[in-house]
Amino acid sequence: MKVRDLMTPVSFFKIPVDMDQEEAAKIFSKYKLPSAPVVDADSRLVGTLSANDIIEVIEEESTEDIQKMAGVEVLDKPYFQVPFREMIQKRVTWLCVLFFGESLTALAMGFFEGEIEKAVVLALFIPLIISSGGNSGSQAATLIVRAMALREVSFKDWWQVCRREFLSGMALGVILGAMGFAMIAVRSQFSDIYGAHYLLLGLTVSASLVLVVIWGTLCGSLLPILLKRLGFDPAVASAPFVATMVDVTGLVIYFLVGMAVLKGTLL
Amino acid sequence: MKVRDLMTPVSFFKIPVDMDQEEAAKIFSKYKLPSAPVVDADSRLVGTLSANDIIEVIEEESTEDIQKMAGVEVLDKPYFQVPFREMIQKRVTWLCVLFFGESLTALAMGFFEGEIEKAVVLALFIPLIISSGGNSGSQAATLIVRAMALREVSFKDWWQVCRREFLSGMALGVILGAMGFAMIAVRSQFSDIYGAHYLLLGLTVSASLVLVVIWGTLCGSLLPILLKRLGFDPAVASAPFVATMVDVTGLVIYFLVGMAVLKGTLL
Repeated sequence: MKVRDLMTPVSFFKIPVDMDQEEAAKIFSKYKLPSAPVVDADSRLVGTLSANDIIEVIEEESTEDIQKMAGVEVLDKPYFQVPFREMIQKRVTWLCVLFFGESLTALAMGFFEGEIEKAVVLALFIPLIISSGGNSGSQAATLIVRAMALREVSFKDWWQVCRREFLSGMALGVILGAMGFAMIAVRSQFSDIYGAHYLLLGLTVSASLVLVVIWGTLCGSLLPILLKRLGFDPAVASAPFVATMVDVTGLVIYFLVGMAVLKGTLL
Repeated sequence: MKVRDLMTPVSFFKIPVDMDQEEAAKIFSKYKLPSAPVVDADSRLVGTLSANDIIEVIEEESTEDIQKMAGVEVLDKPYFQVPFREMIQKRVTWLCVLFFGESLTALAMGFFEGEIEKAVVLALFIPLIISSGGNSGSQAATLIVRAMALREVSFKDWWQVCRREFLSGMALGVILGAMGFAMIAVRSQFSDIYGAHYLLLGLTVSASLVLVVIWGTLCGSLLPILLKRLGFDPAVASAPFVATMVDVTGLVIYFLVGMAVLKGTLL
Protein backbone atom coordinates (compact mmCIF):
# COMPACT_ATOMS: atom_id res chain seq x y z
CA MET A 1 0.00 0.00 0.00
CA LYS A 2 1.25 3.41 -0.92
CA VAL A 3 0.93 6.55 1.11
CA ARG A 4 -1.69 7.63 -1.44
CA ASP A 5 -4.24 5.47 0.36
CA LEU A 6 -3.40 6.75 3.83
CA MET A 7 -3.03 10.47 3.28
CA THR A 8 -5.59 13.18 3.82
CA PRO A 9 -5.87 14.95 0.44
CA VAL A 10 -4.09 18.31 0.43
CA SER A 11 -6.06 21.22 1.78
CA PHE A 12 -7.95 23.29 -0.74
CA PHE A 13 -5.97 26.24 0.50
CA LYS A 14 -2.50 26.24 -0.96
CA ILE A 15 -0.76 29.44 0.05
CA PRO A 16 1.54 30.92 -2.65
CA VAL A 17 4.98 31.47 -1.21
CA ASP A 18 5.06 35.14 -2.26
CA MET A 19 1.60 36.01 -0.98
CA ASP A 20 1.42 38.95 1.38
CA GLN A 21 1.44 37.86 5.02
CA GLU A 22 -1.65 39.91 5.73
CA GLU A 23 -3.44 38.29 2.82
CA ALA A 24 -2.59 34.84 4.19
CA ALA A 25 -3.80 35.94 7.62
CA LYS A 26 -7.22 36.81 6.14
CA ILE A 27 -7.50 33.33 4.62
CA PHE A 28 -6.55 31.61 7.87
CA SER A 29 -8.98 33.74 9.78
CA LYS A 30 -11.85 33.32 7.32
CA TYR A 31 -11.62 29.54 6.95
CA LYS A 32 -10.28 28.76 10.45
CA LEU A 33 -7.38 26.74 9.04
CA PRO A 34 -5.08 25.02 11.54
CA SER A 35 -2.34 24.95 8.89
CA ALA A 36 -1.85 25.13 5.13
CA PRO A 37 0.79 24.01 2.61
CA VAL A 38 2.87 26.71 0.96
CA VAL A 39 3.55 26.29 -2.76
CA ASP A 40 5.66 28.06 -5.38
CA ALA A 41 4.42 29.41 -8.71
CA ASP A 42 4.39 25.88 -10.19
CA SER A 43 2.35 24.50 -7.28
CA ARG A 44 5.44 22.70 -5.94
CA LEU A 45 5.34 22.29 -2.18
CA VAL A 46 7.93 24.45 -0.46
CA GLY A 47 6.72 24.58 3.14
CA THR A 48 3.87 24.77 5.59
CA LEU A 49 2.32 27.60 7.50
CA SER A 50 0.33 27.13 10.68
CA ALA A 51 -2.22 29.16 12.58
CA ASN A 52 0.22 29.95 15.38
CA ASP A 53 2.59 31.60 12.89
CA ILE A 54 -0.32 33.69 11.70
CA ILE A 55 -1.46 34.91 15.13
CA GLU A 56 1.57 37.15 15.36
CA VAL A 57 0.89 38.68 11.95
CA ILE A 58 -2.71 39.43 12.91
CA GLU A 59 -1.69 41.10 16.17
CA GLU A 60 1.00 43.15 14.47
CA GLU A 61 -1.41 44.18 11.73
CA SER A 62 -3.96 45.39 14.25
CA THR A 63 -1.35 47.27 16.23
CA GLU A 64 -0.10 48.95 13.07
CA ASP A 65 -3.61 49.92 12.00
CA ILE A 66 -4.40 51.30 15.44
CA GLN A 67 -1.20 53.36 15.54
CA LYS A 68 -1.65 54.67 12.02
CA MET A 69 -5.25 55.59 12.68
CA ALA A 70 -4.14 57.83 15.53
CA GLY A 71 -1.49 59.53 13.42
CA VAL A 72 1.54 57.74 14.82
CA GLU A 73 4.03 56.08 12.53
CA VAL A 74 4.23 52.38 13.23
CA LEU A 75 6.39 51.52 16.25
CA ASP A 76 8.25 48.31 15.56
CA LYS A 77 9.04 47.66 19.21
CA PRO A 78 7.08 47.55 22.49
CA TYR A 79 6.36 50.98 24.05
CA PHE A 80 9.19 51.02 26.58
CA GLN A 81 11.76 49.65 24.13
CA VAL A 82 11.38 52.44 21.59
CA PRO A 83 14.23 54.93 22.21
CA PHE A 84 13.03 58.41 23.19
CA ARG A 85 14.38 60.07 20.06
CA GLU A 86 12.68 57.53 17.80
CA MET A 87 9.41 57.90 19.73
CA ILE A 88 9.42 61.65 19.06
CA GLN A 89 10.22 61.13 15.38
CA LYS A 90 7.33 58.67 15.01
CA ARG A 91 4.90 61.21 16.47
CA VAL A 92 6.15 64.59 15.31
CA THR A 93 5.59 64.18 11.56
CA TRP A 94 1.85 63.74 11.72
CA LEU A 95 1.50 66.29 14.51
CA CYS A 96 3.21 68.83 12.26
CA VAL A 97 1.09 67.89 9.25
CA LEU A 98 -2.06 68.22 11.35
CA PHE A 99 -0.75 71.49 12.78
CA PHE A 100 -0.33 72.92 9.29
CA GLY A 101 -3.77 71.67 8.32
CA GLU A 102 -5.28 73.11 11.44
CA SER A 103 -3.51 76.43 10.95
CA LEU A 104 -5.93 76.92 8.05
CA THR A 105 -8.57 77.45 10.74
CA ALA A 106 -6.73 80.60 11.80
CA LEU A 107 -6.69 81.67 8.16
CA ALA A 108 -10.39 80.87 7.67
CA MET A 109 -11.37 82.69 10.84
CA GLY A 110 -9.36 85.68 9.64
CA PHE A 111 -11.95 86.12 6.90
CA PHE A 112 -14.71 86.27 9.48
CA GLU A 113 -12.92 88.51 11.97
CA GLY A 114 -15.42 91.28 11.24
CA GLU A 115 -18.33 89.00 12.08
CA ILE A 116 -16.70 87.86 15.32
CA GLU A 117 -16.09 91.48 16.28
CA LYS A 118 -19.78 92.28 15.72
CA ALA A 119 -21.02 89.15 17.47
CA VAL A 120 -18.43 87.77 19.91
CA VAL A 121 -21.09 85.33 21.09
CA LEU A 122 -20.61 83.45 17.80
CA ALA A 123 -17.03 82.60 18.81
CA LEU A 124 -18.22 80.78 21.93
CA PHE A 125 -19.65 77.89 19.90
CA ILE A 126 -16.75 77.37 17.53
CA PRO A 127 -15.04 74.52 19.43
CA LEU A 128 -18.38 72.80 20.08
CA ILE A 129 -19.44 72.84 16.44
CA ILE A 130 -16.18 71.89 14.82
CA SER A 131 -15.41 69.15 17.32
CA SER A 132 -18.87 67.61 16.81
CA GLY A 133 -18.07 67.37 13.12
CA GLY A 134 -14.65 65.96 13.95
CA ASN A 135 -16.01 63.35 16.36
CA SER A 136 -18.69 62.09 13.99
CA GLY A 137 -16.13 62.03 11.19
CA SER A 138 -13.66 60.06 13.31
CA GLN A 139 -16.36 57.53 14.16
CA ALA A 140 -17.25 57.04 10.52
CA ALA A 141 -13.59 56.84 9.45
CA THR A 142 -12.79 54.25 12.10
CA LEU A 143 -15.78 52.07 11.21
CA ILE A 144 -14.96 52.13 7.51
CA VAL A 145 -11.19 51.62 7.92
CA ARG A 146 -11.75 48.59 10.12
CA ALA A 147 -14.50 47.22 7.86
CA MET A 148 -12.09 47.56 4.92
CA ALA A 149 -9.29 45.80 6.84
CA LEU A 150 -11.69 42.90 7.50
CA ARG A 151 -12.82 42.94 3.83
CA GLU A 152 -16.39 43.79 4.73
CA VAL A 153 -16.32 46.95 2.62
CA SER A 154 -14.45 47.66 -0.61
CA PHE A 155 -14.31 50.37 -3.26
CA LYS A 156 -17.31 49.04 -5.18
CA ASP A 157 -19.48 49.71 -2.12
CA TRP A 158 -18.75 53.45 -2.11
CA TRP A 159 -22.19 54.55 -3.16
CA GLN A 160 -23.91 52.32 -0.64
CA VAL A 161 -21.57 53.64 2.10
CA CYS A 162 -22.24 57.18 0.94
CA ARG A 163 -26.03 56.79 1.16
CA ARG A 164 -25.89 55.02 4.49
CA GLU A 165 -23.51 57.54 6.07
CA PHE A 166 -25.46 60.49 4.69
CA LEU A 167 -28.55 59.19 6.50
CA SER A 168 -26.51 58.39 9.63
CA GLY A 169 -25.00 61.87 9.58
CA MET A 170 -28.44 63.41 9.19
CA ALA A 171 -29.88 61.44 12.12
CA LEU A 172 -26.87 62.16 14.36
CA GLY A 173 -26.76 65.81 13.27
CA VAL A 174 -30.43 66.38 14.02
CA ILE A 175 -30.00 64.88 17.50
CA LEU A 176 -26.94 67.03 18.31
CA GLY A 177 -28.55 70.08 16.67
CA ALA A 178 -31.64 69.69 18.86
CA MET A 179 -29.43 69.39 21.93
CA GLY A 180 -27.54 72.52 20.94
CA PHE A 181 -30.75 74.47 20.42
CA ALA A 182 -32.19 73.30 23.74
CA MET A 183 -28.97 74.19 25.54
CA ILE A 184 -29.02 77.78 24.26
CA ALA A 185 -32.78 78.22 24.77
CA VAL A 186 -32.71 76.88 28.34
CA ARG A 187 -29.65 78.85 29.35
CA SER A 188 -31.20 82.05 27.97
CA GLN A 189 -34.10 81.72 30.43
CA PHE A 190 -31.68 82.14 33.32
CA SER A 191 -29.02 84.44 31.92
CA ASP A 192 -28.57 87.18 29.42
CA ILE A 193 -25.29 85.89 28.00
CA TYR A 194 -26.71 85.08 24.55
CA GLY A 195 -28.62 88.37 24.22
CA ALA A 196 -32.07 89.12 22.85
CA HIS A 197 -31.61 87.20 19.61
CA TYR A 198 -30.91 83.93 21.36
CA LEU A 199 -33.47 82.03 19.28
CA LEU A 200 -31.71 83.07 16.06
CA LEU A 201 -28.39 82.16 17.64
CA GLY A 202 -29.83 78.76 18.59
CA LEU A 203 -31.05 78.32 15.03
CA THR A 204 -27.58 79.16 13.68
CA VAL A 205 -25.83 76.74 16.02
CA SER A 206 -28.27 73.88 15.46
CA ALA A 207 -28.44 74.26 11.66
CA SER A 208 -24.61 74.38 11.59
CA LEU A 209 -24.42 71.26 13.74
CA VAL A 210 -26.69 69.35 11.35
CA LEU A 211 -24.66 70.38 8.31
CA VAL A 212 -21.25 69.93 9.94
CA VAL A 213 -22.12 66.47 11.28
CA ILE A 214 -23.44 65.32 7.88
CA TRP A 215 -20.31 66.71 6.25
CA GLY A 216 -18.01 65.12 8.85
CA THR A 217 -19.69 61.74 8.52
CA LEU A 218 -19.44 61.81 4.73
CA CYS A 219 -15.78 62.89 4.74
CA GLY A 220 -14.93 60.30 7.37
CA SER A 221 -16.52 57.44 5.48
CA LEU A 222 -15.50 58.32 1.94
CA LEU A 223 -11.93 59.50 2.54
CA PRO A 224 -10.58 56.04 3.54
CA ILE A 225 -12.26 54.49 0.47
CA LEU A 226 -10.74 57.17 -1.75
CA LEU A 227 -7.29 56.77 -0.14
CA LYS A 228 -7.40 53.04 -0.73
CA ARG A 229 -8.47 53.59 -4.35
CA LEU A 230 -5.50 55.91 -4.89
CA GLY A 231 -3.19 53.21 -3.59
CA PHE A 232 -2.61 54.65 -0.10
CA ASP A 233 -3.17 52.84 3.16
CA PRO A 234 -6.66 53.88 4.31
CA ALA A 235 -5.65 53.62 7.96
CA VAL A 236 -3.05 56.40 7.72
CA ALA A 237 -3.98 59.06 10.26
CA SER A 238 -7.57 58.77 9.16
CA ALA A 239 -9.33 59.91 12.32
CA PRO A 240 -7.23 63.01 13.13
CA PHE A 241 -6.87 63.83 9.43
CA VAL A 242 -10.63 63.79 8.93
CA ALA A 243 -11.13 65.79 12.13
CA THR A 244 -8.69 68.47 10.93
CA MET A 245 -10.33 68.65 7.50
CA VAL A 246 -13.74 68.99 9.09
CA ASP A 247 -12.52 71.64 11.56
CA VAL A 248 -11.51 73.93 8.71
CA THR A 249 -14.57 73.36 6.53
CA GLY A 250 -16.87 73.26 9.57
CA LEU A 251 -15.80 76.79 10.52
CA VAL A 252 -16.68 78.06 7.07
CA ILE A 253 -20.07 76.30 7.19
CA TYR A 254 -20.79 77.80 10.62
CA PHE A 255 -19.97 81.36 9.62
CA LEU A 256 -21.86 81.13 6.33
CA VAL A 257 -24.94 79.83 8.16
CA GLY A 258 -24.47 82.58 10.75
CA MET A 259 -24.27 85.27 8.06
CA ALA A 260 -27.44 83.95 6.41
CA VAL A 261 -29.47 83.64 9.62
CA LEU A 262 -28.20 86.63 11.59
CA LYS A 263 -28.02 89.24 8.81
CA GLY A 264 -29.83 92.36 9.99
CA THR A 265 -29.88 91.32 13.63
CA LEU A 266 -26.53 90.38 15.18
CA LEU A 267 -24.50 90.83 11.98
CA MET B 1 5.05 -0.85 26.78
CA LYS B 2 2.58 1.71 27.96
CA VAL B 3 1.67 4.93 26.22
CA ARG B 4 3.71 6.66 28.94
CA ASP B 5 6.85 5.80 26.99
CA LEU B 6 5.53 6.99 23.65
CA MET B 7 3.79 10.23 24.53
CA THR B 8 5.10 13.76 24.33
CA PRO B 9 4.74 15.15 27.87
CA VAL B 10 1.78 17.54 28.15
CA SER B 11 2.48 21.09 27.22
CA PHE B 12 3.53 23.40 30.01
CA PHE B 13 0.53 25.52 29.09
CA LYS B 14 -2.65 24.05 30.47
CA ILE B 15 -5.47 26.48 29.84
CA PRO B 16 -8.07 26.64 32.66
CA VAL B 17 -11.54 26.06 31.22
CA ASP B 18 -12.94 29.28 32.72
CA MET B 19 -10.06 31.51 31.65
CA ASP B 20 -11.04 34.62 29.70
CA GLN B 21 -10.76 34.07 25.95
CA GLU B 22 -8.65 37.20 25.59
CA GLU B 23 -6.33 35.98 28.31
CA ALA B 24 -5.87 32.67 26.47
CA ALA B 25 -5.24 34.57 23.25
CA LYS B 26 -2.37 36.44 24.91
CA ILE B 27 -0.76 33.14 25.97
CA PHE B 28 -1.10 31.62 22.51
CA SER B 29 0.33 34.73 20.94
CA LYS B 30 3.21 35.08 23.39
CA TYR B 31 4.39 31.46 23.25
CA LYS B 32 3.34 30.74 19.66
CA LEU B 33 1.42 27.61 20.72
CA PRO B 34 -0.15 25.51 17.96
CA SER B 35 -2.60 24.07 20.53
CA ALA B 36 -3.00 23.56 24.27
CA PRO B 37 -4.98 21.26 26.56
CA VAL B 38 -7.86 22.75 28.50
CA VAL B 39 -8.25 21.64 32.11
CA ASP B 40 -10.78 22.15 34.90
CA ALA B 41 -10.05 23.40 38.41
CA ASP B 42 -8.66 19.99 39.41
CA SER B 43 -6.32 19.82 36.40
CA ARG B 44 -8.57 17.21 34.76
CA LEU B 45 -8.42 17.38 30.98
CA VAL B 46 -11.69 18.62 29.49
CA GLY B 47 -10.73 19.66 25.97
CA THR B 48 -8.20 21.19 23.63
CA LEU B 49 -7.86 24.64 22.15
CA SER B 50 -5.93 25.35 18.98
CA ALA B 51 -4.37 28.41 17.42
CA ASN B 52 -6.99 28.63 14.68
CA ASP B 53 -9.73 28.95 17.31
CA ILE B 54 -7.76 31.77 18.84
CA ILE B 55 -7.26 33.77 15.63
CA GLU B 56 -10.91 34.77 15.61
CA VAL B 57 -10.74 35.97 19.21
CA ILE B 58 -7.70 38.10 18.44
CA GLU B 59 -9.35 39.71 15.41
CA GLU B 60 -12.57 40.40 17.30
CA GLU B 61 -10.63 41.84 20.22
CA SER B 62 -8.75 44.23 17.96
CA THR B 63 -11.92 45.30 16.18
CA GLU B 64 -13.62 45.95 19.51
CA ASP B 65 -10.68 47.96 20.78
CA ILE B 66 -10.52 50.00 17.60
CA GLN B 67 -14.24 50.77 17.69
CA LYS B 68 -14.22 51.63 21.38
CA MET B 69 -11.20 53.87 20.94
CA ALA B 70 -13.11 55.96 18.40
CA GLY B 71 -16.14 56.27 20.66
CA VAL B 72 -18.35 53.73 18.94
CA GLU B 73 -20.04 50.97 20.92
CA VAL B 74 -18.90 47.60 19.70
CA LEU B 75 -20.68 46.44 16.54
CA ASP B 76 -21.25 42.71 16.74
CA LYS B 77 -21.84 42.32 13.01
CA PRO B 78 -20.06 43.39 9.82
CA TYR B 79 -20.68 47.02 8.77
CA PHE B 80 -23.40 46.40 6.19
CA GLN B 81 -25.23 43.88 8.36
CA VAL B 82 -25.80 46.24 11.26
CA PRO B 83 -29.37 47.59 10.93
CA PHE B 84 -29.54 51.38 10.47
CA ARG B 85 -31.33 51.99 13.77
CA GLU B 86 -28.77 49.94 15.69
CA MET B 87 -25.90 51.73 13.92
CA ILE B 88 -27.24 55.10 15.10
CA GLN B 89 -27.69 53.82 18.65
CA LYS B 90 -24.11 52.54 18.74
CA ARG B 91 -22.80 55.96 17.72
CA VAL B 92 -25.14 58.46 19.30
CA THR B 93 -24.39 57.75 22.97
CA TRP B 94 -20.74 58.72 22.84
CA LEU B 95 -21.40 61.61 20.43
CA CYS B 96 -23.86 63.02 22.99
CA VAL B 97 -21.47 62.48 25.89
CA LEU B 98 -18.69 64.21 23.94
CA PHE B 99 -21.12 66.97 22.94
CA PHE B 100 -21.94 67.65 26.58
CA GLY B 101 -18.26 67.58 27.46
CA GLU B 102 -17.43 69.90 24.60
CA SER B 103 -20.27 72.27 25.51
CA LEU B 104 -18.10 73.17 28.51
CA THR B 105 -15.88 74.99 25.99
CA ALA B 106 -18.77 77.40 25.34
CA LEU B 107 -19.10 77.86 29.09
CA ALA B 108 -15.35 78.37 29.55
CA MET B 109 -15.16 80.85 26.70
CA GLY B 110 -18.09 82.72 28.25
CA PHE B 111 -15.76 83.65 31.10
CA PHE B 112 -13.29 85.15 28.62
CA GLU B 113 -15.84 86.93 26.42
CA GLY B 114 -14.48 90.28 27.61
CA GLU B 115 -10.96 89.31 26.54
CA ILE B 116 -12.16 88.13 23.12
CA GLU B 117 -14.05 91.40 22.66
CA LYS B 118 -10.87 93.38 23.41
CA ALA B 119 -8.62 91.18 21.27
CA VAL B 120 -10.62 89.32 18.61
CA VAL B 121 -7.29 88.19 17.17
CA LEU B 122 -6.99 85.82 20.15
CA ALA B 123 -10.05 83.89 18.94
CA LEU B 124 -8.38 83.07 15.63
CA PHE B 125 -5.95 80.64 17.28
CA ILE B 126 -8.41 78.78 19.49
CA PRO B 127 -9.04 75.81 17.16
CA LEU B 128 -5.32 75.50 16.35
CA ILE B 129 -4.25 75.42 19.99
CA ILE B 130 -6.92 73.15 21.39
CA SER B 131 -6.71 70.68 18.51
CA SER B 132 -2.92 70.45 18.87
CA GLY B 133 -3.49 69.42 22.48
CA GLY B 134 -6.19 67.00 21.36
CA ASN B 135 -4.04 65.43 18.66
CA SER B 136 -1.04 64.90 20.89
CA GLY B 137 -3.34 63.53 23.59
CA SER B 138 -4.99 61.11 21.16
CA GLN B 139 -1.58 59.87 20.04
CA ALA B 140 -0.48 59.23 23.60
CA ALA B 141 -3.79 57.59 24.54
CA THR B 142 -3.67 55.29 21.54
CA LEU B 143 -0.07 54.23 22.20
CA ILE B 144 -0.77 53.46 25.85
CA VAL B 145 -4.11 51.70 25.27
CA ARG B 146 -2.54 49.41 22.70
CA ALA B 147 0.55 48.83 24.82
CA MET B 148 -1.73 47.87 27.71
CA ALA B 149 -3.76 45.51 25.49
CA LEU B 150 -0.51 43.79 24.50
CA ARG B 151 0.62 43.73 28.17
CA GLU B 152 3.63 45.91 27.47
CA VAL B 153 2.49 48.51 30.01
CA SER B 154 0.55 48.03 33.26
CA PHE B 155 -0.48 50.12 36.26
CA LYS B 156 2.84 49.70 38.03
CA ASP B 157 4.54 51.52 35.15
CA TRP B 158 2.50 54.71 35.64
CA TRP B 159 5.36 56.81 36.94
CA GLN B 160 7.71 55.70 34.18
CA VAL B 161 4.99 56.47 31.59
CA CYS B 162 4.37 59.82 33.23
CA ARG B 163 8.04 60.84 33.07
CA ARG B 164 8.47 59.61 29.52
CA GLU B 165 5.30 61.31 28.24
CA PHE B 166 6.10 64.54 30.06
CA LEU B 167 9.40 64.70 28.18
CA SER B 168 7.71 63.66 24.91
CA GLY B 169 5.04 66.33 25.41
CA MET B 170 7.71 68.93 26.08
CA ALA B 171 9.69 68.02 22.95
CA LEU B 172 6.58 67.94 20.76
CA GLY B 173 5.18 71.10 22.34
CA VAL B 174 8.39 73.05 21.77
CA ILE B 175 8.43 72.00 18.10
CA LEU B 176 4.79 73.00 17.53
CA GLY B 177 5.25 76.15 19.61
CA ALA B 178 8.22 77.21 17.46
CA MET B 179 6.18 76.58 14.32
CA GLY B 180 3.31 78.64 15.71
CA PHE B 181 5.62 81.52 16.57
CA ALA B 182 7.30 81.41 13.16
CA MET B 183 3.91 81.33 11.42
CA ILE B 184 2.73 84.49 13.19
CA ALA B 185 6.06 86.30 12.83
CA VAL B 186 6.38 85.55 9.11
CA ARG B 187 2.77 86.40 8.30
CA SER B 188 3.13 89.71 10.15
CA GLN B 189 5.87 90.79 7.76
CA PHE B 190 3.39 90.74 4.88
CA SER B 191 0.14 91.70 6.52
CA ASP B 192 -1.22 93.73 9.39
CA ILE B 193 -3.77 91.18 10.51
CA TYR B 194 -2.05 90.43 13.84
CA GLY B 195 -1.43 94.11 14.68
CA ALA B 196 1.55 95.86 16.23
CA HIS B 197 1.88 93.47 19.16
CA TYR B 198 2.37 90.44 16.94
CA LEU B 199 5.47 89.33 18.83
CA LEU B 200 3.56 89.20 22.10
CA LEU B 201 0.74 87.37 20.32
CA GLY B 202 3.28 84.91 18.95
CA LEU B 203 4.66 84.43 22.44
CA THR B 204 1.16 83.79 23.82
CA VAL B 205 0.35 81.26 21.11
CA SER B 206 3.64 79.41 21.34
CA ALA B 207 3.76 79.28 25.14
CA SER B 208 0.16 78.03 25.13
CA LEU B 209 1.04 75.38 22.58
CA VAL B 210 3.90 74.09 24.73
CA LEU B 211 1.72 73.89 27.84
CA VAL B 212 -1.34 72.47 26.07
CA VAL B 213 0.68 69.77 24.28
CA ILE B 214 2.39 68.72 27.53
CA TRP B 215 -0.99 68.67 29.26
CA GLY B 216 -2.62 66.73 26.40
CA THR B 217 0.17 64.17 26.30
CA LEU B 218 0.00 63.62 30.05
CA CYS B 219 -3.80 63.30 30.09
CA GLY B 220 -3.72 60.98 27.11
CA SER B 221 -1.17 58.64 28.61
CA LEU B 222 -2.35 58.59 32.23
CA LEU B 223 -6.12 58.49 31.71
CA PRO B 224 -6.16 54.96 30.21
CA ILE B 225 -3.96 53.71 33.07
CA LEU B 226 -6.30 55.32 35.60
CA LEU B 227 -9.41 53.93 33.86
CA LYS B 228 -7.96 50.45 33.95
CA ARG B 229 -7.06 50.83 37.62
CA LEU B 230 -10.65 51.83 38.40
CA GLY B 231 -11.87 48.68 36.68
CA PHE B 232 -13.01 50.29 33.39
CA ASP B 233 -11.92 49.28 29.93
CA PRO B 234 -9.07 51.66 29.03
CA ALA B 235 -10.00 51.57 25.36
CA VAL B 236 -13.43 53.16 25.88
CA ALA B 237 -13.59 56.31 23.79
CA SER B 238 -10.11 57.16 24.92
CA ALA B 239 -8.95 59.30 22.00
CA PRO B 240 -12.05 61.53 21.57
CA PHE B 241 -12.58 61.62 25.33
CA VAL B 242 -9.05 62.86 25.93
CA ALA B 243 -9.38 65.34 23.05
CA THR B 244 -12.58 66.78 24.55
CA MET B 245 -11.04 67.04 28.00
CA VAL B 246 -8.00 68.80 26.57
CA ASP B 247 -10.18 71.14 24.48
CA VAL B 248 -11.85 72.51 27.59
CA THR B 249 -8.75 72.77 29.74
CA GLY B 250 -6.64 73.93 26.77
CA LEU B 251 -8.91 76.94 26.30
CA VAL B 252 -8.45 77.95 29.92
CA ILE B 253 -4.67 77.55 29.64
CA TYR B 254 -4.62 79.67 26.46
CA PHE B 255 -6.63 82.53 27.93
CA LEU B 256 -4.70 82.53 31.21
CA VAL B 257 -1.41 82.69 29.30
CA GLY B 258 -2.91 85.41 27.11
CA MET B 259 -3.96 87.47 30.13
CA ALA B 260 -0.50 87.13 31.67
CA VAL B 261 1.42 88.02 28.50
CA LEU B 262 -0.87 90.60 26.94
CA LYS B 263 -1.90 92.55 30.03
CA GLY B 264 -1.37 96.24 29.36
CA THR B 265 -1.04 95.82 25.60
CA LEU B 266 -3.89 93.98 23.86
CA LEU B 267 -5.84 93.21 27.04
